[in-house]
Amino acid sequence: MNSSEKKRIAVIGAGNVAWHLAPALAAAGHTVTAIYSRSPASREALARLLPAAQPIYSLDLLEMAVEVVLIAVPDAALAGVAAALKVAPGTVVAHTSGSQPLALLQPIQGAHIGVLYPLQTFSKSKPVDFAGVPLLVEAQDAETLRQLEMLAQSISSKAYRVPSEARRQLHLAAVFACNFTNHLLGISEQLLQEANLPKELLQPLIAETIEKASRQDPFSVQTGPAVRGDDNVLQAHLQMLQPYPRYQAIYRQLSQSIQAQASGEANQFNLKDGSPV
Amino acid sequence: MNSSEKKRIAVIGAGNVAWHLAPALAAAGHTVTAIYSRSPASREALARLLPAAQPIYSLDLLEMAVEVVLIAVPDAALAGVAAALKVAPGTVVAHTSGSQPLALLQPIQGAHIGVLYPLQTFSKSKPVDFAGVPLLVEAQDAETLRQLEMLAQSISSKAYRVPSEARRQLHLAAVFACNFTNHLLGISEQLLQEANLPKELLQPLIAETIEKASRQDPFSVQTGPAVRGDDNVLQAHLQMLQPYPRYQAIYRQLSQSIQAQASGEANQFNLKDGSPV
Repeated sequence: MNSSEKKRIAVIGAGNVAWHLAPALAAAGHTVTAIYSRSPASREALARLLPAAQPIYSLDLLEMAVEVVLIAVPDAALAGVAAALKVAPGTVVAHTSGSQPLALLQPIQGAHIGVLYPLQTFSKSKPVDFAGVPLLVEAQDAETLRQLEMLAQSISSKAYRVPSEARRQLHLAAVFACNFTNHLLGISEQLLQEANLPKELLQPLIAETIEKASRQDPFSVQTGPAVRGDDNVLQAHLQMLQPYPRYQAIYRQLSQSIQAQASGEANQFNLKDGSPV
Repeated sequence: MNSSEKKRIAVIGAGNVAWHLAPALAAAGHTVTAIYSRSPASREALARLLPAAQPIYSLDLLEMAVEVVLIAVPDAALAGVAAALKVAPGTVVAHTSGSQPLALLQPIQGAHIGVLYPLQTFSKSKPVDFAGVPLLVEAQDAETLRQLEMLAQSISSKAYRVPSEARRQLHLAAVFACNFTNHLLGISEQLLQEANLPKELLQPLIAETIEKASRQDPFSVQTGPAVRGDDNVLQAHLQMLQPYPRYQAIYRQLSQSIQAQASGEANQFNLKDGSPV
């Protein structure tokens, strides 16, 4: 990237996404000039990680001499920021949300609006190698799209152009694959703890499950008592879950869905686990 | 292992577990003398992988001169095998099931009964490195336990003594962490396909989710719209799922459970995703 592609950038938000995105941009040679957050501790802590950034306590004080403003705030706060934000005409303004449409930024007068969505789960306590994080870009016009794509490519090898509708669907898919999976792993860990079994016991099986699902259609490699139609085991498990009505309901729902999936696709259905003796 | 610890072993079953376990035993220096299966194709295919094994079509023809009989059949077939099997007095007979109790083998006259449960998901098409597979052993008497433990240690570095009750709970935990997770990954993949998005897009996020859950309590690192209480996103997702009532029901159930988990543990609850602006 030549120096004309190095941007002056303001970041709105100092949460988990901003915490990783702003330093990655600075490390790639861009200048992050300002961090805006209502939380003094958050904006000051993040600004300290950036050589050229000022912590800003009011959107009105945001420095105008930036080419890009990135809005990395919770979804629910996005409309409020869009209503309050004033920028110089021609400034690229992008939000970083997976679930919110590009159009949410239309109230910002004179802005060239877009989206730069890093598809990863971030915690402040855990470093992330941005180079491997998929970045999804979208914009209202071709030139803004090009600018955001270059910005994305300066910090990651995986930039994709994805419009709002598909990004919304992707976000939904991520809720199933990640948020819900994490909850299941939590239930599993609790069950292990109650039997005084070490968490490590299940790790190889979990790793293999994920690996296998990444190479093949997960529906076609489904294993376990539900897809086998092993009613004895299903009943025994539901019995064991009686102290946990919530987990019991999840068990029933997912087992039914596994069975419906398998029987609805009769031509793909195969008894995967155990051949006949 | 010295030669007195090398065993002569018969394997009952030629499904996914037997398919990987029998060759691992042969590779460790044991002699697998017989493979019994009702399916001619299965027993012959597996016996061909083993230098000393005969394919056997009737339990009555099982060679008596073995020290160990491993029963690797579907759970539902286990009781039938236990009722029909005759062995020489003192033979170690173990099943390989995660969910079935040791006591299921009690009908086998004169046998020293036990369990050798490999905690992994197996497909015939995919090689497995047994050295990293946790093997759970249990037996009715101390000497049989020692024998099965030595057998387990000869093929894996991870042998654990786990009694039936805890193994049952472990199996239930595995259904949540693996079978159910796989189904969610299938739903996620279907949603991606419908938006013409490549499966690879979600892989880094899935990998990070699993990695994070392995290091911390999954409940404490839960992210997503449910734990954030982001009702707008939850409603939008339920709306998008209207063509799939089954997925909609799963979405609702898991979101409710995530919220109940978070609010029930008020002192651990923390807004993990996005700080206040």
